[in-house]
Order: sequence, then C-alpha cells, then structure tokens
Amino acid sequence: MRKSYLLTPGPTPIPPQVSQEEAKPIIHHLTPQFQAVIKEVSEGLKYVFQTASDVYILASSGTGAMEAAVVNLLSPGDTVITVEAGKFGERWTEICQAYCVTAEVIKVEWGKAVDPKEIEKRIKNNPKIKAVFTTLCETSTGVTNDIQAIGTVVKGTGAVLVVDAISGLGAIDLKTDAWSVDVCVSGSQKGLMLPPGLSFISLSPKAWELVELARSPRYYFDMRAAKKALEKTDTPYTPAISLIIALAESLKMMKQDGLENVFARHRKMADATRCAMKDLGLELFAPTAASDVVTAVKVPAGIDGEKLVKTMRDTYRVTIAGGQAELKGKVFRFAHMGYIEEFDIIVGISCLEKVLKQMGYKFELGAGVKAAEEVFFK
Amino acid sequence: MRKSYLLTPGPTPIPPQVSQEEAKPIIHHLTPQFQAVIKEVSEGLKYVFQTASDVYILASSGTGAMEAAVVNLLSPGDTVITVEAGKFGERWTEICQAYCVTAEVIKVEWGKAVDPKEIEKRIKNNPKIKAVFTTLCETSTGVTNDIQAIGTVVKGTGAVLVVDAISGLGAIDLKTDAWSVDVCVSGSQKGLMLPPGLSFISLSPKAWELVELARSPRYYFDMRAAKKALEKTDTPYTPAISLIIALAESLKMMKQDGLENVFARHRKMADATRCAMKDLGLELFAPTAASDVVTAVKVPAGIDGEKLVKTMRDTYRVTIAGGQAELKGKVFRFAHMGYIEEFDIIVGISCLEKVLKQMGYKFELGAGVKAAEEVFFK
Repeated sequence: MRKSYLLTPGPTPIPPQVSQEEAKPIIHHLTPQFQAVIKEVSEGLKYVFQTASDVYILASSGTGAMEAAVVNLLSPGDTVITVEAGKFGERWTEICQAYCVTAEVIKVEWGKAVDPKEIEKRIKNNPKIKAVFTTLCETSTGVTNDIQAIGTVVKGTGAVLVVDAISGLGAIDLKTDAWSVDVCVSGSQKGLMLPPGLSFISLSPKAWELVELARSPRYYFDMRAAKKALEKTDTPYTPAISLIIALAESLKMMKQDGLENVFARHRKMADATRCAMKDLGLELFAPTAASDVVTAVKVPAGIDGEKLVKTMRDTYRVTIAGGQAELKGKVFRFAHMGYIEEFDIIVGISCLEKVLKQMGYKFELGAGVKAAEEVFFK
Repeated sequence: MRKSYLLTPGPTPIPPQVSQEEAKPIIHHLTPQFQAVIKEVSEGLKYVFQTASDVYILASSGTGAMEAAVVNLLSPGDTVITVEAGKFGERWTEICQAYCVTAEVIKVEWGKAVDPKEIEKRIKNNPKIKAVFTTLCETSTGVTNDIQAIGTVVKGTGAVLVVDAISGLGAIDLKTDAWSVDVCVSGSQKGLMLPPGLSFISLSPKAWELVELARSPRYYFDMRAAKKALEKTDTPYTPAISLIIALAESLKMMKQDGLENVFARHRKMADATRCAMKDLGLELFAPTAASDVVTAVKVPAGIDGEKLVKTMRDTYRVTIAGGQAELKGKVFRFAHMGYIEEFDIIVGISCLEKVLKQMGYKFELGAGVKAAEEVFFK
C-alpha cells in the first residue's frame, strides 16, 4: 500500500473528477458535441485569463505557446527585450535567437524580481523595441515578477507585453486586460490542474496588429489559422480531445470556487510553507517577491540537497523539486499550486522534517508543521 | 441508455485499459519512474515503426511532426518534391511554402495512388531535389501509396524519403528501415489507439546528416534538442505525461498481438467493408490502391451524403466521416482502424443500411452485413 504526494511546480496533481473526464470514451472533434466543449472551455479560459480576448488552445507543451508568441509577433531582425530572472526567462531569449530576433537581455540576479524601471529605461533608450518578454512566476527561483507594474510602463509605448504565465496562471492573480498584458501564454499542467500537453495563448488587439505584419515563418503555430478555425468553433489541426474535455471539468471547478478564493488558498498555503521553513531554521532563496506557487529554499550547510529530494521521493513518495541549472543541489523547491490544499502542505512539511532529521540537520521535530498549522488556523 | 460507436479515421476508439492508464494519478517526468516509461515506449515505437533508429515523441498533433520533418531537413531556397494525392499531401506543400522551401508538386488525381516512376523521373530531371514528401494512407481519399516502391526509387539518390504515416502506422505494413524510409512521422490517434496529442518522428542516419546542415529556424521542433534529451532518457520540454503512459499500454497490446496479426485484422476488416459496399450496390471511390484503414465510398445518386453521415451520428450514434474539401457531400468514409474488430464493422454496416433504407436508397436490407459476415467467416 503506497500513497504518493506530488508537490512539484508542474505537473501538479490532477483532481480525480478531471482524470475521469479525460478517460471517457473519445468523441470525434468535428461534431456538434465537441463544438459545445470548445465553446465552454473558451468561456472558461477567458474567465481564468481575465480577458475579453479569445484564448487559443494549442496541442503542445507551454514552450510551444512561447514559440507561437515569438513567431506570430515578430520578423527576423526585430529587436525585443527579454527578462532573464531564471531558467524560463532565458527560454524567451533562446526562442528569439532561433528566429533571428535580436534580444536585449535584462539579466536579473536569480532570486530577485525584475525592476519595472529598468524595462522603462530600455524602451526609452531604444524606440525600436517591438516587444517585452517576461515571466509571471520564475519556477526556477520561486520569484513572482510585478506584471501590473511592468504593464504600466509598457502600456503607453509601441511595444507589446508578452507574459509567460505557464507557472502561476489560475493560482495567483494575473489580470491580462486590466494590467495591459498583450500576449499571455500558459500551460495545462500547473494552476489548471491538468496533465501536460495543452498550451494556451491570448492576444490583445494591439498584438493582433503585429500578427498581420510578422514575417517569421510559421505553420503549426500560425495564429492566423487558429483564429480562422476558432471562428468556426474549430481548431486548425486535430486537437488534443481528451485533454480539452478534461479542461472543461477543471475550469468548471475553478469557476465554482471563484478565482478570488483560488488565489486566497494559494496565498495561505505559500504563507504557511514560508513560516514553516523559517521555524525549521531554513532560509528562503527569494525572501522578497517570493512566489505564492512555489517556495525555493536554500539547502542548509552540511546537507546533500539532491539526496534530500531523492529520499523524500523514493523512500516516502513525497515528490518536491530540486534546483535547476546553477541552483542544482543548492535549493529545493516546494510547490503549493493547483489541486493542493492545507493538509497536503502539512504532509509535505512533515516528510521534509523527517528526512532532514534523518540527515542530521538540527531542529525541533514538529516545528515546521506547527508553524504551518498556526497559519492555517487563523 | 446510449451506446456510441466511432468508425472514423482518427480519432479512433481508445481501449478501456489504455484510458485507465491515462487517468492514473500523474507522476513527475523528471523521475526514474517516468524514465522507465520513456525506455519502454522507445522500444515499443521502434517495433511498430519497424526501425532501428530512435523514434522521438513530440507533444503536438501529427501536423507538428510534419513541420518538424520540414524544418529539420531543409533550408530556405531548397527544392523538394511533394506528392499531392489528397488533402494531407497538400499539407506537405503548405508547410514547405511556409518555410520558403520550393515544392515541385506531383498532383495525383484524388482516388489514385502516386506512380513511383513519376517520382523517379522528377528526381532524375532535377538533381537538386533534397527530399520527397509523401503520404502512406491518404485519409481524405482512402488510398494507400506504394511506399515500398517509392523507397526503391528514392534510395539510390541524394534525396531523403519522408512519409506521413499519421494515418496507417500500426494498422497497415510500413517497414521504415527495409523500405528505405528516411523520415517517418505519425500521430497517436489512429493505429496507435490513443487520444490525439502526441506525434512521432523517426530519422535515418541519412536524414540526420541533413538535420545538421538545415538552416530553417526552429526551436520547439528542433530535433537536435530532442536527440540530446533522449540520450538522457528525457524530452527537451515537459512531455505529455499521461498520454505517454497510455502509449506504453497500447504498445504493449500491439506487441502481444504481434504486428502481423494486427495488419491481418485490418486487411480482413477492410475486405469485409469493401464487399459489403459492393453488395449494397455502392461504388468505392478508390477501387485500386484502396486503403486497409479507411474505405471511401461514393454517395449514391439521389442521397444527401452529409445528411447520411449526420443521421448515423446524431440519431444512431454511429460516427463515420464525410468527405473533405472537394469531396464534401460526395463520399462518406468508413474507417476500420485501431481498436476495431469484426463486430464493430457489422454494427457500422448495419447502421449504414438502416439509414440508407430510410433515405429511400434501393437495396435488400441485410445484404451488406451478409457480405461482411461471409468475409469474416472464412
């Protein structure tokens, strides 16, 4: 009898009712039955994206939607700003470079959020900047960028604001329209509580103007084809039917809870996790701008960070994430995103305490769980 | 109490044991557990593709793998041959054009297979041809091209042979290595008995030489990144975990049956379907080179083809496919692919008879089912 817990920043656990929808006998996509599903999820996605624009569903990982943003907005030789505050910000730069778009990189120290003033300055210095690419939550460092403030500085300029909200959308607040986010991309396996395999992209009217002008080659990710298809409640290529049917269920759950309550739950879980880490004597990797979807924690001196994560997973079946790239072995990342609630957090902290104690780290057993309980009790 | 039957050329029905795998609690992809799945499906895919080369799994529709073939083999300004014997052959031309690759189109009358000698002649006339793009089974017309013969004419030349085997792989024979197919692309929702959302691509050593030289821009579909990742039993971006876990199950089923038996089953079902149509007085759209995965049938005079398909689906819940593009309303397509066996065929024909009779078409009720039973009885 083995019970497993998943506390990683994607994939996140799937609610059983969502899995059940995914496993239902498949239907054909060119039927009124499936068109009804497309209509339903289109409305649901607008609600979660907080936008009046259409949200397109792609059959791809989140990276596919990121590529869609680049190739549909830009032409070879264009110049953009990319914000690199972690591994996923770097991906924007890589995609731009692959398509011969010049990226002016704003390098941010890992663990910090980007300063919106830096973006403002760069746009002022170079009026040719066509787009600003940034990240809602840098999963690799556990930092949330201030998208609202970035939106304010980009809004009045000729540039469009593109946000990778793969990690965070549907878990923390992102007001696409109100914050002037022109292009918002996301993925299925995070706040939306689905398996990976779907990605999403919304485009503002300002972004659509660029789509018509962009000369980057594109076919599978051509948003003009997606737009034409959606007008007929269709997709340009065979959609990932079972995942979209599951999406209808997860969106229904989110609507029933209400976005504000979903965000409040994430805030509280993040608070509890951070308090627990503090009372265990552990240091947060990103004490300022700490994300409410994943908490990155410094591995204490004398402890093998990779072994900590492996033992939690392989011996106790509680899966958290280790550090990525330059943070490998130096941090562990404890996620509290999606279909996760307070008692999952308690389990995760309890397991962390158990393994830390076994590995010889000094602290009072129960201190982390107590701190979390106190937050949840309020 | 409503029972549904799906006899379309993709998606095809999902075996319940495959759906159950898909619905299991999700696991993280960067774990030994999921690496074991990648290893298992890699072996299984080689078996089904009949190749010793690695087969890469992409999170996309089949069209994504088609795009991967084009952008990884070619550079802007290159010249290739595309075989257009239906809607899906045309897609090769469209993708090439999107990436500034010149396509010498071989137009084949819809309902006919391409003549391999025509390909041979074209390559001889233009030694700059870098690749030949063709289709195993043209789902839109119900025709199978003779890939073995095409392989023989392309083999000795400087060009690579690329086959869209999205429709047909794992249902009819395609010996990737033995027939000198350099690049074989496929999708999950046909012979592999899965929901749509995964695509596959195999590359021969001859194809890999082009990959290193190709200058088409690419990122999400960059096979160099996929290769690097697979060497570490990984994927470059988050894989469609639940679909890949389901794939392990469907590949296991195919291995247990044995490919030869799978092909024989499809052959017999196709035979039965064709005999039934004949005895119903209906005419096949593609009497020569008729595919064993889908049978295209001319709508008889005086019958509304679109209404026929709609009535079968909406009144009796037996879903077959109508005609696409120029064949809209002129043919219906009765698929016998994937998780389908003789009694599904009987149901489909029985329903077809019922609706044809209701619509005033003259024939002896039961004649189609009788013809099919006779084939299955042998």
